[in-house]
Amino acid sequence: MRLAIDAMGGDNAPQAIIDGVHEALEAYKDLSVTIVGDENQINPLLTDSKERITVLHTDEYITSEDQPVRAARRKKKASMVLAVNEVKEGRADACISAGNTGALMAAGLLYVGRIEGIERPGLAPTLPTIDEKGFLLLDVGANMDSKPEHLLQYAHMGSVYAEKVRGIESPRIGLLNIGTEEGKGNELSKQAFTLLQESGLNFVGNVESRDILSNAADVVVCDGFSGNLVLKTIEGTALTMFTMLKEELTSSFTSKMAAGVLKPKLKNLKNKLDYSEYGGAGLFGLRAPVIKAHGSSNGRAVFSAIKQARMMVTGNVVTEIKSSLEEKQEGDQ
Amino acid sequence: MRLAIDAMGGDNAPQAIIDGVHEALEAYKDLSVTIVGDENQINPLLTDSKERITVLHTDEYITSEDQPVRAARRKKKASMVLAVNEVKEGRADACISAGNTGALMAAGLLYVGRIEGIERPGLAPTLPTIDEKGFLLLDVGANMDSKPEHLLQYAHMGSVYAEKVRGIESPRIGLLNIGTEEGKGNELSKQAFTLLQESGLNFVGNVESRDILSNAADVVVCDGFSGNLVLKTIEGTALTMFTMLKEELTSSFTSKMAAGVLKPKLKNLKNKLDYSEYGGAGLFGLRAPVIKAHGSSNGRAVFSAIKQARMMVTGNVVTEIKSSLEEKQEGDQ
Repeated sequence: MRLAIDAMGGDNAPQAIIDGVHEALEAYKDLSVTIVGDENQINPLLTDSKERITVLHTDEYITSEDQPVRAARRKKKASMVLAVNEVKEGRADACISAGNTGALMAAGLLYVGRIEGIERPGLAPTLPTIDEKGFLLLDVGANMDSKPEHLLQYAHMGSVYAEKVRGIESPRIGLLNIGTEEGKGNELSKQAFTLLQESGLNFVGNVESRDILSNAADVVVCDGFSGNLVLKTIEGTALTMFTMLKEELTSSFTSKMAAGVLKPKLKNLKNKLDYSEYGGAGLFGLRAPVIKAHGSSNGRAVFSAIKQARMMVTGNVVTEIKSSLEEKQEGDQ
Repeated sequence: MRLAIDAMGGDNAPQAIIDGVHEALEAYKDLSVTIVGDENQINPLLTDSKERITVLHTDEYITSEDQPVRAARRKKKASMVLAVNEVKEGRADACISAGNTGALMAAGLLYVGRIEGIERPGLAPTLPTIDEKGFLLLDVGANMDSKPEHLLQYAHMGSVYAEKVRGIESPRIGLLNIGTEEGKGNELSKQAFTLLQESGLNFVGNVESRDILSNAADVVVCDGFSGNLVLKTIEGTALTMFTMLKEELTSSFTSKMAAGVLKPKLKNLKNKLDYSEYGGAGLFGLRAPVIKAHGSSNGRAVFSAIKQARMMVTGNVVTEIKSSLEEKQEGDQ
């Protein structure tokens, strides 16, 4: 199996990318990696084990300030675009970038293309839960004005992923909503509820945003605007609480002492909430796995994203999504 | 000034309601209160100072399981409906309930009615920020499928409230969105952005949900579906973190000891995030103040809601909202 990875995307590029690649090559002996980016920066970071690494050199890259769609179209030699292109040309089975999310979504759509029958791809991160099982949330920003049918397709894709990659039998599908009762919500969620009920999936009904971190469902579907709001609200609230906690814990000598003892415990807590253990966000609905690693990824997070991409390839997730949609269409006829 | 209060709504009714009333009567010598509910439960809780308290007896009340609109229409003798009716009949200047949110919104609309020109009332709680200033978020659930014009009206109402009740000069109005740049978001937010730019308000642009707890704006406007999701995501994330923290802090003897020392500090943190200091959620756009106190309100939270209702009356918020809308309409012509 060969993965293509954009070495120039994310806050800690290229060091974190190379660290993640090294860890993955150590863990998976069947893996080869094409690293795309500036060879002058990449080569000095490579250790001895170069036999499964190919460096594809380019000077150009996409920044977080670039206008996503324009950059994906025009910067044809950018490291991200070339990495995606490796998949398009069949030289890689999947690709990963920690760079500009919008640009990666645009490049994925343009160069890898949609699975036939998928109207809109969805961006799907796995988020932590209190019991550390985690859940898949989609869409979190690929598709701003979703239709009920899009949410149904997210449910099908998420269910396949949860089963094949996360090993969950008959994954519980929840619809993000403002109340658990049927009939709650806006027009979109009311219509999506009906479609999900008839989907043949293990639909557990509406789930409220206050319950998603408590393992309310294995896959939670929503429109991209709502999903993005919820994702960033979780981030913002967790960050705010850590900041407040730090202030409280360092406000007197005694509590400073106590905080010292508790430091490893707080670090545990932070780790539980840490995205880097959960891989990146998959762009679901494309003809091959395209994974967005978090912009602030360290080597560990890049490794997790590679692990995830690898499982999407070995689990035949794209083929399985196609079959799931075909079964659905046959059921409709 | 006279306020009507539903004694039977909320998890801790009627004790918490009566506690809050006693505290408010102590603090505000100009205040009289009509307490609506079961006199057999209320009277034994009243202390000596009864001269500014009137008890309006009823046996009926609305539960959290009642279907909101139907309950507000049919349970005409329910404590909540009678409290709202006191305002309608001009015997009270404002009313408060900690009961069924949907029913209070329905009763407010049915019996108090909308301010002329307001298309949809908005439910507006004040949420905590890291600097303890707090911000107003609306709508959080009165109006599921909002139009851009509704968001503009929320901005006008929120601005008046922030100025008159919270004492903020030229309040900063933000539009809840998935990115800070102009042009981000769904169709609703793009159109609302344009309206807010032309509104004459102190519009500071898009604000992301991860920044709202860090004082990104004084008033944040959004559709009721998004607002409700964000509100409950904050609640759920904070609760999850406290649970995880508790687990970590009690997982060994040493950290248990340290946790003991830190307990007051953690309590401080919880207080900072505590809704009960921020009053209830105002139902904005009605002809008189209608305040929804949190369902789990204690006496302190009920007191805060009364304080808030009182300031809405003394600050002439309803009249000021009318003027703000009239100015806007004149500007449009």
